[in-house]
Amino acid sequence: MKGKIASDELVYLPLGGAGEIGMNLNLYGFGPPQNRKWLMVDLGIGFGDETIPGVDVVMPDITFIEEHRKNLVGLVLTHAHEDHIGAVPWLWSRLKCPIYATPFTAAVLNAKISDEGSAQDARIRVLQLSARQKIGPFDVELITLTHSIPEPNAVAIRTPLGTILNTGDWKIDPNPLIGVTTDEEALRRLGDEGVLAMTCDSTNVFVPGRSGSEDDVRTALTRVVLECRGRVAVTAFASNVARLESVIAAAHAARRHVALVGRSMFRIVNAARETGYLKSATGLIDAEEARDLPPGRVLYLCTGSQGEPGSALQRIAAGEHRDVSLEKGDTVIFSSRVIPGNEKTVFALQNALAARDVEIITDQDHHVHVSGHPARDELADMYRWVRPRIAIPVHGEMRHLHEHARLARSLQVPETLVAGNGAMIRLAPGRPEQVDQVPSGRMHRDGALVVPAHESGAKARRSMSFAGFVAVTLVIDGRSRLVADPVVVAEGIPEKIVGALTEAATDAAGRLRRLDDDGETAETVRRAVRRAAQSDWGKRPVVRVEVVRI
Amino acid sequence: MKGKIASDELVYLPLGGAGEIGMNLNLYGFGPPQNRKWLMVDLGIGFGDETIPGVDVVMPDITFIEEHRKNLVGLVLTHAHEDHIGAVPWLWSRLKCPIYATPFTAAVLNAKISDEGSAQDARIRVLQLSARQKIGPFDVELITLTHSIPEPNAVAIRTPLGTILNTGDWKIDPNPLIGVTTDEEALRRLGDEGVLAMTCDSTNVFVPGRSGSEDDVRTALTRVVLECRGRVAVTAFASNVARLESVIAAAHAARRHVALVGRSMFRIVNAARETGYLKSATGLIDAEEARDLPPGRVLYLCTGSQGEPGSALQRIAAGEHRDVSLEKGDTVIFSSRVIPGNEKTVFALQNALAARDVEIITDQDHHVHVSGHPARDELADMYRWVRPRIAIPVHGEMRHLHEHARLARSLQVPETLVAGNGAMIRLAPGRPEQVDQVPSGRMHRDGALVVPAHESGAKARRSMSFAGFVAVTLVIDGRSRLVADPVVVAEGIPEKIVGALTEAATDAAGRLRRLDDDGETAETVRRAVRRAAQSDWGKRPVVRVEVVRI
Repeated sequence: MKGKIASDELVYLPLGGAGEIGMNLNLYGFGPPQNRKWLMVDLGIGFGDETIPGVDVVMPDITFIEEHRKNLVGLVLTHAHEDHIGAVPWLWSRLKCPIYATPFTAAVLNAKISDEGSAQDARIRVLQLSARQKIGPFDVELITLTHSIPEPNAVAIRTPLGTILNTGDWKIDPNPLIGVTTDEEALRRLGDEGVLAMTCDSTNVFVPGRSGSEDDVRTALTRVVLECRGRVAVTAFASNVARLESVIAAAHAARRHVALVGRSMFRIVNAARETGYLKSATGLIDAEEARDLPPGRVLYLCTGSQGEPGSALQRIAAGEHRDVSLEKGDTVIFSSRVIPGNEKTVFALQNALAARDVEIITDQDHHVHVSGHPARDELADMYRWVRPRIAIPVHGEMRHLHEHARLARSLQVPETLVAGNGAMIRLAPGRPEQVDQVPSGRMHRDGALVVPAHESGAKARRSMSFAGFVAVTLVIDGRSRLVADPVVVAEGIPEKIVGALTEAATDAAGRLRRLDDDGETAETVRRAVRRAAQSDWGKRPVVRVEVVRI
Repeated sequence: MKGKIASDELVYLPLGGAGEIGMNLNLYGFGPPQNRKWLMVDLGIGFGDETIPGVDVVMPDITFIEEHRKNLVGLVLTHAHEDHIGAVPWLWSRLKCPIYATPFTAAVLNAKISDEGSAQDARIRVLQLSARQKIGPFDVELITLTHSIPEPNAVAIRTPLGTILNTGDWKIDPNPLIGVTTDEEALRRLGDEGVLAMTCDSTNVFVPGRSGSEDDVRTALTRVVLECRGRVAVTAFASNVARLESVIAAAHAARRHVALVGRSMFRIVNAARETGYLKSATGLIDAEEARDLPPGRVLYLCTGSQGEPGSALQRIAAGEHRDVSLEKGDTVIFSSRVIPGNEKTVFALQNALAARDVEIITDQDHHVHVSGHPARDELADMYRWVRPRIAIPVHGEMRHLHEHARLARSLQVPETLVAGNGAMIRLAPGRPEQVDQVPSGRMHRDGALVVPAHESGAKARRSMSFAGFVAVTLVIDGRSRLVADPVVVAEGIPEKIVGALTEAATDAAGRLRRLDDDGETAETVRRAVRRAAQSDWGKRPVVRVEVVRI
């Protein structure tokens, strides 16, 4: 209605992490539709897979919020994992909003920014744990939780239309070893105050029971390391500082010296020390120094738990590490889990170690790892404390989000909402409903470029990877005659059919009566080559034909 | 020593399955080294992965036994799974030896042979269960076991130098529902007689306890299906005939009609009926017919438990199946496990179903699947019954084989031997030792061709999939002048750098003083293009340069 003053709305809009693993990006909007202020929580990366070959890192398409960056009042980072902060160095310069983070997260992000050489002018405003901060129209409070990294925070966002709790990643660890325990009191207090909606971690919604405590892992690690005789290598996520401390404690209990192996181990240990953690990590030695010690006196703390190519443990397993070699009698402890999708690289790593007759210990046979995400009983606790009116499962694939919604309903949450990326949900006033669908998608980091998915070449590369590629060049003179045999370059095609493809191109060009329509000439030759491939090979490669006029 | 008569030896030689999943091929040799007779047990395929794009199926390189085919006295097939019989249609014509199999295995193989249109002249000699058959110098006895397919057999091979037991794939199912239980008596009798060596299934060596019984799955499936209200789709491996029977029984208990969906379901059901199984599978209806029934009266039994592209369930999840559509209120039961390596396709399938709000039930939440392979307590039973002098773990990756060897040692087996493919092990006389390493490796089925791995183009395709491909054609006249701009065809390269590559090729060709050495010209241009890509993109594509003289 003309002249009507639009009223305030509270909306939620995920641009990443809703229906996929990694790449978390949550937006909360407040104000009238024409002039909403936006608060962003997290800006993470995801990892590529075989469907996008050559792309190691993906990040959310931020076109929407880039267009509204004048109304973007800030970015709050819940914790320092890559899937929550990893895109900041790549995308921040397109947003240039204030960044808020607690000290450890800020230290890790600063180290990343100076490593990547991008987003150098980003300034991080450091918030203390449990801080409360006004950011635009949002009254933001951090609530300390526990997770597999120091300083995991939930973010309570109070607005005149209600309070939202973004849990970030969390678990309930009664003895996290680093940092304090989950701030149950603050969560209960928030619940008493009234919470309109909770966007909550879905990672382990299929896991019954509880995730367990870091303290139990320390006990198990110590026992396992004490029983080892030869060299011991332990691999863990570098960012799990409590775990690093546990490994160092286990080594010391077994009178072993600890050598860090792998660049990210050093980076995290530095960030941890800068911010007051890992004070027990004394007496670390160089891997080179460790060579001269008896095998029973050494423990290597390595990167590479996911079998990443070029990582410390992968090079050790391949016998290619300068300072570390393992053999029969030595033990590798995987104090980690296999991230879904990494099964093959992890098992390839373990096979390479097994072929050296190195003993392998994993969380399948000893309690050397616990997850950092809430299992079902922990989710139930959280819902009991916070009692949101609306549950919005995030941080998971569709199968996780739907199962999480089912669980929330079984816990008497009145409304559940499974939103995909780009779905703008009005949370208040009125019943929650989707009011818009904004552009969303992925950016690819392809080599040194960060480009929209369709511009990266990954799709074309994937097509070539199935059936190869053939380039044909035809050289035609002014009288529309072929002046040389077609030049056929075939790559990724079985050797024995390349001759037939060349012949097909030559025959097709030769049979053409007139070569004056280059488009038609090219298309005729292209089809002939694909037909020949189909007939001799059963596959149709990508074929491109260029005509050169001289 | 001159004139010495070589004495008989008993050897074992795996050409597939030793250190990898799938592709089982075991050779047992008897006789003097110059004139050994060979018995082959199984000739299976494996499946491709992202490291060999475009190759769906791999099989063992049989060069060695092809060269010795005159001494190949026969091929015994333990059971009808693809990783044990799948390569027969493709490779048998290079061997042309007699094939021995029990009735169900023979029926499945015959159906495959007539489908593939190859190896049409292969004749299968049908052995009855528990048959004993002289094959060359080998006295072969089949021993009935239990597994996830009808008629799984161990093969006892008696020779004058000792007896070998090849277990094939097995478990100990106290109530397999189809076929009889594990022939413990025959195994014990063989153990009393004395077994020199046992080559044994390692698949589940990391699994504690026992694999469980098919009977329990039937009970659980029946309970689960009874609780469903809407449509039910169950996916299972078609070859698991007992499971198909269980699903049909569960459907009948819930007064649902069963429709088979997916080609291999029909193929196996036919083979099963031909050989006397699945007599209870009456009253099956067409999927088309099922459309007209109320949702609560229908159960679809589908292929596609691994999320295979184009399989029944994948098409249903994508909303592309002609006769079957699922929606909110319907349930899909995965009566199967995720084969390692298939996690992503299976989860993508489940996500697509979840996005339709279809409920998903898996073996993670209900007892709707048991493995067909022995867990550790079953392995212990087998070693206790058979008491081999030498344990040779097969049918697993290196990590499985080494763990299996450790387990066997803990069970007091005097000798354990982890042999990789191509390792020829003399088992007798004397202590077991490797006496030769013969050529081994993989064949790729690339399109319609079966070629040695290095000829298939998969390696080149993988390289292109990371960094794309650039073909440059230079047209040069009789006076060694460029007569046109270089033709640059770039595929799988980000759009925004293609211009720079073309420029680099043009500049490099232009800067060359003399173009009379085509090799040098091509190499200079190739390097310039790769340098430009590295500088603008951070990656070096595959670049090929052709020079055309006119």
